[in-house]
Amino acid sequence: MTTTNTVTPTSDIKVADSAFLKALVQQIRANDSYGTLRNWADELILKPFVVSKQQKREISVDGDIDPITKGRILAFYRAIAARLEEETGQLAQVVIDLSHEGFGWALVFCGRLIAVSRTLRDAQRFGYESLEKLAAEGDKLTQQGVDYIKRFPEVSKV
Amino acid sequence: MTTTNTVTPTSDIKVADSAFLKALVQQIRANDSYGTLRNWADELILKPFVVSKQQKREISVDGDIDPITKGRILAFYRAIAARLEEETGQLAQVVIDLSHEGFGWALVFCGRLIAVSRTLRDAQRFGYESLEKLAAEGDKLTQQGVDYIKRFPEVSKV
Repeated sequence: MTTTNTVTPTSDIKVADSAFLKALVQQIRANDSYGTLRNWADELILKPFVVSKQQKREISVDGDIDPITKGRILAFYRAIAARLEEETGQLAQVVIDLSHEGFGWALVFCGRLIAVSRTLRDAQRFGYESLEKLAAEGDKLTQQGVDYIKRFPEVSKV
Repeated sequence: MTTTNTVTPTSDIKVADSAFLKALVQQIRANDSYGTLRNWADELILKPFVVSKQQKREISVDGDIDPITKGRILAFYRAIAARLEEETGQLAQVVIDLSHEGFGWALVFCGRLIAVSRTLRDAQRFGYESLEKLAAEGDKLTQQGVDYIKRFPEVSKV
């Protein structure tokens, strides 16, 4: 197999294989008050998180960020918060501060410690090239957060 | 003089007497791109931050929070960030995460440390009974933030 940059909307990874993707699906199902997604496969539920480079280019960043995209960003960081709780036992909170132009901050914090800190830009185009990349990014941010919590345990418990 | 709970929209404190109120005025003047407020007295500029209990009761919390109120909340916490920078030399950032219903978070952070953390509710009614109370609250939050930065200097520099 050659490594290419071609778009691969289909993916080999299964949600069941990734603790982060499972946490993300859980976030979305928890907000599915009307049961619309009840019979959907996990992979289908995560499909909107997969956005190819081509698709990103086609999304305008001039307009306001739409509430559905904002909801996806929130679900992503809440899934990281849930993973941090699983890994460390610390309660984690999420704040998303987004201007209408799609710029801002995403923070996940425990006590007085910011475990995960990301600046957001062009948030209208939020998404990853594949489920694998989505899982990898979620795992990476979770791991960084766990490291900070272990490094400053006192601050995370204030 | 007797202490009463009556509304006192006029106030004895001068902006020049309070480092916090000066920082707050500075925030607002900095955003006054068209010079609308150029000839206004500092006390007049801060008038919308003074909201009596009676006035608060008259503000509905059913609707969305309006952008002007949100701007005042942002100015308030940015003034605290500016004060923290003056007191500690640390760069401080502000995030405000407000739902349309007026609930949310205000955080001021330095590095990975949350120096000031407030949950917001009924943010539509944001304001203080007098300039004195506004100054006192700003000073209190600033002092708390300074204490956290002194307690966890390492985290505030990450």
